[in-house]
Amino acid sequence: MVSSTFLTLASGYQMPQVGFGLWKVPRETTAETVYNAIQLGYRLFDGAYDYQNEKEAGEGIRKAISDGLVTREEIFITTKLWNNYHRKEHAIKMAKTQNDTWGLGYIDLYLIHFPIALKFIEPSDLEFPAWWIDSARSDVAVDKVPIAETWAAMEAVVDIGIARSIGVSNFSAQLIYDIMTYARHPISALQIEHHPYLVQSELVKLAQENNIAVTAYSSFGPQSFLELPPDFSGKAQAVSPLLDNERITFIASKYRKTPAQILLRWATQRGIAVIPKSNSQSRLTQNLEVTDFDLTREDVKAISDLDCGLRFNDPGEYLVTHPLRIFT
Amino acid sequence: MVSSTFLTLASGYQMPQVGFGLWKVPRETTAETVYNAIQLGYRLFDGAYDYQNEKEAGEGIRKAISDGLVTREEIFITTKLWNNYHRKEHAIKMAKTQNDTWGLGYIDLYLIHFPIALKFIEPSDLEFPAWWIDSARSDVAVDKVPIAETWAAMEAVVDIGIARSIGVSNFSAQLIYDIMTYARHPISALQIEHHPYLVQSELVKLAQENNIAVTAYSSFGPQSFLELPPDFSGKAQAVSPLLDNERITFIASKYRKTPAQILLRWATQRGIAVIPKSNSQSRLTQNLEVTDFDLTREDVKAISDLDCGLRFNDPGEYLVTHPLRIFT
Repeated sequence: MVSSTFLTLASGYQMPQVGFGLWKVPRETTAETVYNAIQLGYRLFDGAYDYQNEKEAGEGIRKAISDGLVTREEIFITTKLWNNYHRKEHAIKMAKTQNDTWGLGYIDLYLIHFPIALKFIEPSDLEFPAWWIDSARSDVAVDKVPIAETWAAMEAVVDIGIARSIGVSNFSAQLIYDIMTYARHPISALQIEHHPYLVQSELVKLAQENNIAVTAYSSFGPQSFLELPPDFSGKAQAVSPLLDNERITFIASKYRKTPAQILLRWATQRGIAVIPKSNSQSRLTQNLEVTDFDLTREDVKAISDLDCGLRFNDPGEYLVTHPLRIFT
Repeated sequence: MVSSTFLTLASGYQMPQVGFGLWKVPRETTAETVYNAIQLGYRLFDGAYDYQNEKEAGEGIRKAISDGLVTREEIFITTKLWNNYHRKEHAIKMAKTQNDTWGLGYIDLYLIHFPIALKFIEPSDLEFPAWWIDSARSDVAVDKVPIAETWAAMEAVVDIGIARSIGVSNFSAQLIYDIMTYARHPISALQIEHHPYLVQSELVKLAQENNIAVTAYSSFGPQSFLELPPDFSGKAQAVSPLLDNERITFIASKYRKTPAQILLRWATQRGIAVIPKSNSQSRLTQNLEVTDFDLTREDVKAISDLDCGLRFNDPGEYLVTHPLRIFT
């Protein structure tokens, strides 16, 4: 089975609705993982500068192309601009660098990763700043770069042919409305944390009403965060896993699907794209088969009713000495 | 007793921590109500173009000044720019008009009322557009005016001497962070719906960390909305009143205060300004006496624990055919 359902973006390009998320895929195994995923039918790969494995993901895709498994046009790559490079000149330069790193000629979708600018750090001084620059997580300086400047850089990245579509990640309603007042190129996509514990139905409606494709990350809820170091996984460990949730497992058995497939179908059936990852071959295949059956409206609602506004990916909780309270 | 506790704004000016809110005060009784409130000790009046009673509020204040009750410098007026006038030229013109309407020489604090621009309507065609321009509430056209343009207008209003301080109302974290990247004059204040059913503690912390004074509106929760027409009061009617809440009445009896005083002290003790209104003389006096006693930390927490994210003032719920989903 090959990704066969697509969302049409505001840019006019088509995006596969099911893809493979590269967050936390170890650099050493990324090329092989990506190549294998392509063999299994994956066509969209969701990366980011911050995931530190763009080079290897590009290698895996290039090998698949040279082996004749796929063409470049059949592949869709998403990647993201990190917080330290929000100034116009840094953003454009970084897009070029990232594009060269993937080595695929162009980026299909380029997103602003977070709605907050941190001080520029020369990559030659520190290649991957993440959210902190020292182990005390003390020195996270915010930089005064308006989102309008960064959005203009994103548009320039389209104009010079590096990215085909652009969008945002982790943005909320008011800032999305604001970008729409000055955007020259449309916001094609919004990537957000989205699972039955954090449904954000109004934000999803806002995006869909405005022709912004929504991509869910962390579709399995706490599961995604259990792999993080203890400092960042406590909240996820304290919550009962969604994949074991009684309501989810009951619905799964009713449809003869896995709980993961139910969670993914709950999203895709409402027009949302998903980007799961898995280390298991069989689960990789199952995760791709989530657009060919339908949940009843009642079951969709029963799953949505698990909503409790529980967010796991919040820099405000990582940054002890200088919290950024971006989700309120 | 006279308002005697002040918050120092980022602009350098002092704002009384307890004031009188003019929302829903009928035009016919506004001048008298304001004059009477001044006699009772109120010094801050919180108005808005949308409240449709600025002229009468100004009359009440001017009479109190000419009667020698107060001086202009002892009075603090807040007012707000309505959504249809976000374009720079309209905003500056409207600030001048509103300042003339009050007739007090200057505005102490001028706020952007909502983070969304609606199409300009000539006041000579429709003086008070509110959220809709016809009874079907169908024709609410959003206008593409960046908040940066409106903020620049607010700064110009300071530069030409009309307003001493400027700020925002109903704005959330990401847009506040964004304004801070380009503001030439600081955001002095943030006015938000704030009561024990909608605590928004992260947003309050964000503001206070960045020297933005927080003013709570609708401190009594659903109470403020019961006065609205049935179409807009249903949510408030469905909720148990905060002023009758067992936890609040229990704490009130413990401190020998009214439930309203407990709700107001819960806010002021955490550095938040409040702007209650009342039609009763005795309650007006009581509402002013909310900075001279302290709740224990446990009682503050017990009240905050009533939080359930319940918002009453959401244009997304008023605007049936064209919802604006600004609070997500």
